[in-house]
Amino acid sequence: MAEERVQRRLAAILVADVVAYSRLMEKDEAGTLERLKALRADLIDPRIAADGGRIVKTMGDGLLVEFPSAVDAVRNALDIQAVMARRNADLAEDRRMEFRVGINLGDVIIEGDDIHGDGVNVAARLEGLCEPGGVYVSGSVFDQVAGKLDAWFDDLGEQTVKNLARPVRVFRAQIKSEATADPNPVAEAALLLVGDADQLPSVGPG
Amino acid sequence: MAEERVQRRLAAILVADVVAYSRLMEKDEAGTLERLKALRADLIDPRIAADGGRIVKTMGDGLLVEFPSAVDAVRNALDIQAVMARRNADLAEDRRMEFRVGINLGDVIIEGDDIHGDGVNVAARLEGLCEPGGVYVSGSVFDQVAGKLDAWFDDLGEQTVKNLARPVRVFRAQIKSEATADPNPVAEAALLLVGDADQLPSVGPG
Repeated sequence: MAEERVQRRLAAILVADVVAYSRLMEKDEAGTLERLKALRADLIDPRIAADGGRIVKTMGDGLLVEFPSAVDAVRNALDIQAVMARRNADLAEDRRMEFRVGINLGDVIIEGDDIHGDGVNVAARLEGLCEPGGVYVSGSVFDQVAGKLDAWFDDLGEQTVKNLARPVRVFRAQIKSEATADPNPVAEAALLLVGDADQLPSVGPG
Repeated sequence: MAEERVQRRLAAILVADVVAYSRLMEKDEAGTLERLKALRADLIDPRIAADGGRIVKTMGDGLLVEFPSAVDAVRNALDIQAVMARRNADLAEDRRMEFRVGINLGDVIIEGDDIHGDGVNVAARLEGLCEPGGVYVSGSVFDQVAGKLDAWFDDLGEQTVKNLARPVRVFRAQIKSEATADPNPVAEAALLLVGDADQLPSVGPG
């Protein structure tokens, strides 16, 4: 087999960034940086670590994260987005911060602490397609997580990805309770399952 | 997310066994065991280790192996099958031993040194479908290795797998030089790329 040997491993690759980050920075540079830093420190980084993820690198508001398990990666993203939605609901509009998340599965090339390859490019592309507050995953991820999480996956069809010949099948992932028409008691219950629910703003009627 | 937490990781899962092992054992129990043991010791186990694989367990003539990379798993299987084909060509028919190999990609459940889950079942099923001396891989593996190895993949279509609702797409993997109509010089060259080519039986015309 003639391929030059490189070190590879299968990984779930998560790419996230902040919606309209440039606009937020333009309006309030110090405040935006401060809020992002606080979110990372008290929510995002600890949860990624708890789910076995590793932050490969940050690029301004962007995050590249590698998980050993696709199931854990999707669970992690859905949990964080659910907490973000709750927090944003209690904030004035100009204080809100929303994330886009894309997750792909790839046999990535390892170089020291960095990862490369198509698998990373596709994750970034999924993130670019994702709506604010959402989680988009590739067909490869869907194949590994379907039936293993309490989540719905809406098939958004095949999307062409720059520099890749084959199109990528895209799914929108949602926590089941969010995706049901039934509003709310179940969604509240889902939030109680997250790790630091006691640090969340009150979710009761008062 | 309500799934009970288990430890998971993405892995390429390889299942192999010996074709007509019961018949071989019936004819020559001690000799068959001896030949399998020798093949494991001087070919199979060292190559699996060299490609980053881990032998999870053996079941008589069966092997369950986990690789961190799907690319490395397929390369490993094709290399071993190529060496086996050369060795068998130089042996009397009743001394030959052939393997079937199935490779799948799965977000497997880890329990100590063992692995479980659909991903393992599908690998075993692919192995059962495989022809002697061949390597069958799932669509999930194909998606990760296509274009990353000097190999051809024949699409064998979707196969129903016992206890799984969704059918599995099956591909036959072959080293490119084997798959071409052009007989031999290239196949010989490919063999020279394997690790211990100097220990192989002579491949020259004499």
